[in-house]
Amino acid sequence: MYDRLLERIVKPGDSKILLIVVDGLGGLPSPDTGKTELETAVKPEIDKLAQRSALGVTDPIAPGITPGSGPAHLAIFGYDPVKWEIGRGILSALGIGFPVERSDLTARGNFASVDAGGIVTDRRAGRISTEKSTELCGLLDGMRIGDTQVFVRPEKEHRFAVIFRGRGLSDRLTDSDPQVAGQKPRQVEAKEAAAAETARIVNTFLDQAIEALKGKSPANAILLRGFAKHPELPSFSSRYKIKACAIAAYPMYKGLARLVGMSVIDGLESLDSQVDALAKAWHDFDFFYFHYKKPDSRGEDGDFAGKVKAIEELDRYLPRVIKQSPDVLVLTGDHSTPSVLKMHSWHPVPLLVWSRWIIADGLPLNERTCARGGLGRLRAVEVLPLMMANALRLEKFGA
Amino acid sequence: MYDRLLERIVKPGDSKILLIVVDGLGGLPSPDTGKTELETAVKPEIDKLAQRSALGVTDPIAPGITPGSGPAHLAIFGYDPVKWEIGRGILSALGIGFPVERSDLTARGNFASVDAGGIVTDRRAGRISTEKSTELCGLLDGMRIGDTQVFVRPEKEHRFAVIFRGRGLSDRLTDSDPQVAGQKPRQVEAKEAAAAETARIVNTFLDQAIEALKGKSPANAILLRGFAKHPELPSFSSRYKIKACAIAAYPMYKGLARLVGMSVIDGLESLDSQVDALAKAWHDFDFFYFHYKKPDSRGEDGDFAGKVKAIEELDRYLPRVIKQSPDVLVLTGDHSTPSVLKMHSWHPVPLLVWSRWIIADGLPLNERTCARGGLGRLRAVEVLPLMMANALRLEKFGA
Repeated sequence: MYDRLLERIVKPGDSKILLIVVDGLGGLPSPDTGKTELETAVKPEIDKLAQRSALGVTDPIAPGITPGSGPAHLAIFGYDPVKWEIGRGILSALGIGFPVERSDLTARGNFASVDAGGIVTDRRAGRISTEKSTELCGLLDGMRIGDTQVFVRPEKEHRFAVIFRGRGLSDRLTDSDPQVAGQKPRQVEAKEAAAAETARIVNTFLDQAIEALKGKSPANAILLRGFAKHPELPSFSSRYKIKACAIAAYPMYKGLARLVGMSVIDGLESLDSQVDALAKAWHDFDFFYFHYKKPDSRGEDGDFAGKVKAIEELDRYLPRVIKQSPDVLVLTGDHSTPSVLKMHSWHPVPLLVWSRWIIADGLPLNERTCARGGLGRLRAVEVLPLMMANALRLEKFGA
Repeated sequence: MYDRLLERIVKPGDSKILLIVVDGLGGLPSPDTGKTELETAVKPEIDKLAQRSALGVTDPIAPGITPGSGPAHLAIFGYDPVKWEIGRGILSALGIGFPVERSDLTARGNFASVDAGGIVTDRRAGRISTEKSTELCGLLDGMRIGDTQVFVRPEKEHRFAVIFRGRGLSDRLTDSDPQVAGQKPRQVEAKEAAAAETARIVNTFLDQAIEALKGKSPANAILLRGFAKHPELPSFSSRYKIKACAIAAYPMYKGLARLVGMSVIDGLESLDSQVDALAKAWHDFDFFYFHYKKPDSRGEDGDFAGKVKAIEELDRYLPRVIKQSPDVLVLTGDHSTPSVLKMHSWHPVPLLVWSRWIIADGLPLNERTCARGGLGRLRAVEVLPLMMANALRLEKFGA
């Protein structure tokens, strides 16, 4: 419902908004202590901020739905994550900073191992190094299938992005990745007649790649999935009339930011460099998306203590982050990643909103306090309008 | 979603419902005390009622969206405020009590100043007095353009309402008001072919108005906006099978009640007269919309102490209001108007529901208690169905 509403009431301003996304923020209690990661972490700075903020929880998509990072981020950027479905390929391509054109077809690739019979024995080719992967991508990059040019660029370890550039390419294709070992890579199939020629081009590329990788074991095959073209999303800056900047270390999140047209600062590897970049960019933008990855990674590893430490690390940096004095500050997650589940989950995500115009809950930040916070339980897609309101960047609706 | 549902399950009854709308009810903490207007007010009667009621909060439209009084009221009357958009013109015309017919075209007007070249130098003509405006409206009122009769009636200061009465008039017109000084008033344009003749009539009226106002500087031009016909809203009484009555002092709220077809009691100027009118009307209706304006006015003035006093004034009258013994009593706001913001805001609105069939929260009424109340966070449009349910006026849905 916001789609038609917002464009009519958004107004420009000079207020500044900082959105801190702590990936996988929400958790579940450890069976040993009965406390969640957030309840276990010693985080005086986060809790000091929380005390003077309004708390709540969000459902990334809807109760019970576990989101991938793509839809979870679209929702916190204020885009309906069910309406705007984003393929894995375009996230990979944008994530590595490839200048994707609207007519390009993208896919996410894995180097994989196949045996003499062509059966996949390892979908990740023993997680070869990024260095090795870069070398192998060089063998595949620049191929031409008829008029179609193929770009193959490394991501991390065994992962890479493929971009097909040609005329009339379609993303209505099935994956070649069988998703499990013990099977042959699949032929890519057209989901509709208009995609038949594209399927032929992609399958020809797959055949040529197998040729090129002969003898390169363990990385002697490739698997492609998530064929996608660039979606026609309205840009963040036109939608919200605000200059937005992404401060993220991981390719995928930079890709998500590029997808909605945010400026992306490259070359950030550590929280320390991210905090410096925020300070440097502060006067050039009005909206800052600050992404912190580690709690999700540790959660997915099932490393409860590691996730606690990752939260404590953020806590030590927080004073440097918030000393920029934004007019509106939100700290939340894109989704929950409980260490005991070792995966993204459906649990509501803690939400903290600070501005001059909130009623503080006077509570520390964790799953239990947020569930009882004054903001109640929101959909993630409602958070961005709330931030815009707190920044006094929305006109009144109706007379 | 209620639209199709309610008509199938609403049933008549003899229970009585009282909806008290405290305009601009919600607030924000004073920087001096950390307490909101509701937390500051001494209001023993309201709190006694709240103790035995269920509490919650509502979003008038959606989180982050600040509503005008029109959509905010439609929502608490149970109409989707985004679907049923109400033009400024019809609110102006109904607000001053003009007997608008379904075929009439209405607009909101401003007296304005233009220079010798016809450029707008002041969109409000120096905010001329209501007295002066009334005199000038007299010059324009009663004109005829072909078969179309034009009524021009003063609102307040430079504002007036225009009503075109004729055949086949359309509201698919652009505004003549350029919204900024330094430009000429715009020609009114038809947004669709069927509106071309109406555009011609309105433009002819605008030309004649300029003639009539020659030498009347600073009010030597008019600007029109918000062209609107009476929307085809289903009437409150047919939608809810209930006889409804509005007890409001201010024109706009009487206009909104008329818009949904409520009976409106005229001539009420004070809370005292409103309370008397409620007692008198009690046996003739089953639904009472009781509107109290003052907290919003003081909030818009930025008068924190004044808003506190306005709440305390309501508190003193409350025993006389509720001694009618309604079966369902709701006390809420149409929106929040925090004194510190001096305007309508996006903040959720406190909600109190009393009937025999609620679970009492045992708490006083304010923003913090309501945010934690047992009713949770609702959309305003959900409140009227909830009142109907508590009045045992809704059948079970489905077998």
